[in-house]
Amino acid sequence: MKFWPLTGLGEVRAGDPLTADLARLAAASGMRAGDVLVIAHKPVSKAEGRVARLADVEPGEAARRLARETGKEPELCELILRESRSIIRRRRSLLICETHHGFICANAGIDRSNTPDGTAVLLPVDPDASARAISAALSEELRGLVPVVICDTHGRAFRRGLVNVAIGVAGLRAVVDHRGGRDREGRALVATDQAMADELSAAAGMLMGKDAGTPAIACRGVEFVAGRGDAGDLVRDPDEDLFRGD
Amino acid sequence: MKFWPLTGLGEVRAGDPLTADLARLAAASGMRAGDVLVIAHKPVSKAEGRVARLADVEPGEAARRLARETGKEPELCELILRESRSIIRRRRSLLICETHHGFICANAGIDRSNTPDGTAVLLPVDPDASARAISAALSEELRGLVPVVICDTHGRAFRRGLVNVAIGVAGLRAVVDHRGGRDREGRALVATDQAMADELSAAAGMLMGKDAGTPAIACRGVEFVAGRGDAGDLVRDPDEDLFRGD
Repeated sequence: MKFWPLTGLGEVRAGDPLTADLARLAAASGMRAGDVLVIAHKPVSKAEGRVARLADVEPGEAARRLARETGKEPELCELILRESRSIIRRRRSLLICETHHGFICANAGIDRSNTPDGTAVLLPVDPDASARAISAALSEELRGLVPVVICDTHGRAFRRGLVNVAIGVAGLRAVVDHRGGRDREGRALVATDQAMADELSAAAGMLMGKDAGTPAIACRGVEFVAGRGDAGDLVRDPDEDLFRGD
Repeated sequence: MKFWPLTGLGEVRAGDPLTADLARLAAASGMRAGDVLVIAHKPVSKAEGRVARLADVEPGEAARRLARETGKEPELCELILRESRSIIRRRRSLLICETHHGFICANAGIDRSNTPDGTAVLLPVDPDASARAISAALSEELRGLVPVVICDTHGRAFRRGLVNVAIGVAGLRAVVDHRGGRDREGRALVATDQAMADELSAAAGMLMGKDAGTPAIACRGVEFVAGRGDAGDLVRDPDEDLFRGD
């Protein structure tokens, strides 16, 4: 199993032909059908125009109150509220949000790093659709299925340190169900849903670099299960989640 | 960055010379200094004799009560209680425990798969020490530092599917602090603790296979930061954790 970065993507701007650029770079880097591409969400968001200028944001009353309570800018608070279904935990300036996609992450995934001053990068509106578009371009260029995982860097309950997790998936099953398999003693395996898209994201994260210079990582030799792909499979049903309520 | 399984470990029993066996297999598989070994905890636990026969366990009153409430065997409940500092969440048969190490996981990490009927595998008593012993043997055999990560498969709050996380670390910093670095626009990076030992564990998990046939994975090309290693770095301070309380 092998991972390597696609080089040469450069800074992405709204409207850039990212899928075509990635297909070209994938071919140039030696990717082939059956490989997987993992890409950070930021270039995807930028290409899709999901960058907000804070000066253009009009904070409402709730955002102004949240700004006073957290010390964040009111414009940023307005964006966080717009991008959130709910705020599930807060402490001082830390806001843990449930995005409209259902992901639980700080500040609804809004990011101020590696974007010009006075702007903020939002998550793609439909990351699975973004992944499907990239996968289609790569699969055509490389003449066979190339699954795509779009990832973001999240904190976690109970554990320190950030890891990348999948927020958009195309071409492979995000969660692989091994039930029906057997262990080496022949006992049926239970509770063995493998979060493969998250494993891929975490692995690729090691090569992305914190300066975000290499956001696209090729993966070879991964035994994925082909499928439509749905990052929603990675979201635990709120009714089944023991850590959501207060 | 490249990952491959060490083959030939076979079934491990209490008292087996696991560190020597791993050093031999590592050399045979082409590992060299600067590579990292990720190994599932189960063979480590087995070699250390951390396998309990349920028939030898005398359940106390608390375990009997827990057994009635959860439908689990009283002997297993006794083991779970012994291995736990506290039970932090429960629903029906699901017990989310804080182990004496500080890890939050189901059933205090006790596992019934890939172990003979009537037995259960416990986590190593001191997984960092276990990792240090293996790292010492591999580093001597390969004449240079070979860090070791011992992992377990955990569920997660909010996200479906299991991923491997680190429970024992030697030879590398479990969490890498990128503060002081700068993004591409020159702004100081904040909140960029990278959970490298968990990233390595998740990546290696893809090659371990759910039949547990390849529990030891070699990793090459990982930009780790050498250090003593401490899986406790991955445990969030309970006072800083927003998801622990009821």
